[in-house]
Amino acid sequence: MWNKTKLTKETGIEYPLIQAPMAGGPTSPELVSAVSNAGGLGSLGAGYMDPGELEEKIIQIRKLTDNPFAVNLFVPSEYEYDTQKVKKILEAMTPYFQELKLSPDSDVEPLKDYYRDHIEVIVKNEVPVVSFTFGVPDSSSIRRLRSKDIILLGTSTTVEEAIDLESKGLDVIVAQGYEAGGHRGSYLGDSTESLIGTFSLIPQVVDNVSRPVVASGGIMDGRGIAGAICLGASGVQMGTAFLTCTESGAQEIHKNSVLTSREVDTVLTKMFSGKLARGIRNRFTTEMEKFASVVPDYPVQNSLTRGIRKESANKRNPELMSLWSGQGVRLSRSLSAQQLVNTLIDEVNQVFNSIK
Amino acid sequence: MWNKTKLTKETGIEYPLIQAPMAGGPTSPELVSAVSNAGGLGSLGAGYMDPGELEEKIIQIRKLTDNPFAVNLFVPSEYEYDTQKVKKILEAMTPYFQELKLSPDSDVEPLKDYYRDHIEVIVKNEVPVVSFTFGVPDSSSIRRLRSKDIILLGTSTTVEEAIDLESKGLDVIVAQGYEAGGHRGSYLGDSTESLIGTFSLIPQVVDNVSRPVVASGGIMDGRGIAGAICLGASGVQMGTAFLTCTESGAQEIHKNSVLTSREVDTVLTKMFSGKLARGIRNRFTTEMEKFASVVPDYPVQNSLTRGIRKESANKRNPELMSLWSGQGVRLSRSLSAQQLVNTLIDEVNQVFNSIK
Repeated sequence: MWNKTKLTKETGIEYPLIQAPMAGGPTSPELVSAVSNAGGLGSLGAGYMDPGELEEKIIQIRKLTDNPFAVNLFVPSEYEYDTQKVKKILEAMTPYFQELKLSPDSDVEPLKDYYRDHIEVIVKNEVPVVSFTFGVPDSSSIRRLRSKDIILLGTSTTVEEAIDLESKGLDVIVAQGYEAGGHRGSYLGDSTESLIGTFSLIPQVVDNVSRPVVASGGIMDGRGIAGAICLGASGVQMGTAFLTCTESGAQEIHKNSVLTSREVDTVLTKMFSGKLARGIRNRFTTEMEKFASVVPDYPVQNSLTRGIRKESANKRNPELMSLWSGQGVRLSRSLSAQQLVNTLIDEVNQVFNSIK
Repeated sequence: MWNKTKLTKETGIEYPLIQAPMAGGPTSPELVSAVSNAGGLGSLGAGYMDPGELEEKIIQIRKLTDNPFAVNLFVPSEYEYDTQKVKKILEAMTPYFQELKLSPDSDVEPLKDYYRDHIEVIVKNEVPVVSFTFGVPDSSSIRRLRSKDIILLGTSTTVEEAIDLESKGLDVIVAQGYEAGGHRGSYLGDSTESLIGTFSLIPQVVDNVSRPVVASGGIMDGRGIAGAICLGASGVQMGTAFLTCTESGAQEIHKNSVLTSREVDTVLTKMFSGKLARGIRNRFTTEMEKFASVVPDYPVQNSLTRGIRKESANKRNPELMSLWSGQGVRLSRSLSAQQLVNTLIDEVNQVFNSIK
């Protein structure tokens, strides 16, 4: 059976189907638990949460499901607070601050300080699966998580990163293709040179690691899941497909934008956060692109744009918020997570039955 | 059976496998005929040939195979000869002219003049299949080719282009993903906004046209063919995989470069021809990128760089020639075309047998 893979055997999930962690709102406990209850692996995107919020969400998820679920953490990296760049980019964004009646704030979110506490919350609560984005956790954290039999997923965008993750002891390698929505998980080398299409990336990663590989980027339906399995993946991770689910905590304006966009409507931009990410093109991505050379590092820029993104969403204005989305948008659907998982599994079975 | 698709039924080929037209040398009559003899569809890339050379190659192919084969033509488009840009780009390339002991030549190849004569050669020789890149042939050419029962393939990089090709009467829609090597076939809108990954592109195109869709971009082995079939394609078109075949007319230095590169080593550049194309990063692509804003239109820039590309190849120097390649390079193999086709078919069968 196509759905009995190394991934399902090692994680105990029924279907080799991971709902991608989408930090910043979409991965409500309701979405995460609904996916896990349906036989997939729900993931809580905890990158922007403080440790107290993380623990609260884990407790909520546990109340809603007895099945395995995952928490996703951001691995912090060094960054520079370049006062010249901050000054220039705040100037560039002045029209938006004025338009939204906001005062610029040049403080930086204490994301980096949360990392160790996040690990402690995970260990204390014995979360079954943890996935990491933006790098490899330090070896003492890996040992600590392993001592509780927590399964570790790492994110790669190149063969080199996949080999690195395996060598550092991660259990499952997520390979994120160019089509993927949201942040690029690249952490070795230049993220603009790590833009490998899912179709090329998966078999090349599979050939170079022995741990299970999970395909992500542009997978939206049963055809995509079947295709990824053929390419050698042990499973798939799908973000945009779950973002529009009923239980998703994404803003309605964000869901509507995904549901009505075309495959040519997304763009890769560093302008929202300082790290490269894919979302639906809007006024902010288009007008800000000319300031790319002065965008501060992540998470500095992420903090600087936070007020704009939030207030734009509050005002139901899609033009100044981040509308993260992959390229498979025309295939997006408005269903409950349970309906979506059931439909996906039926579709994969149909694809494989039609080929025999 | 997976290999009985709308494409094989309509073209009479045994396997739904097209060797991509790679204009400029690789598609020797030996390669084209070997692929067709092995049950695929060989394609002659005739975009840069004069009509006499085209007819000669067709006659050579006919001597080597009785099976269907294809000829690929470039649809000419309007372009500007911007004397200021030509002056600036020739200045930028002066170090290369000096290094290779060449005199700059600002003439433009008469590619546009060949188009109607190409069509006449095709009709006269009753070539079984014709594929087009860079647009849609004019309606009188379509009628003329159809009157001889010649099957017409068009190239799309977006859903909009696929719908356009179908509406203009093309029989088969090739959908070219972001991973593909060589020139982007985009012809509606901005080619930098038409960079859709194969994994996303195929199902979205399939859902919007009724003609058979052929997947291209990053397909290198049986896993890729099986994956493309699952995504809804009726067949695949593979370029880079055939470029390194024994019979391919590609320069040995080009073949070696593909055989030894990594997935992160390719880059999209307009600097060789004026049109966006993917090849292996080298000194030329890296150093010339800063002149992107003054690159003349295709085919002006293609003519201006011709001497440099040719002499760099003559000198066995991979740094100043175009090394077209897709992102699947780690999967490239040095086999005869017959061996490659046989291996691919075995691999697809293995993939589907392992899933049942």
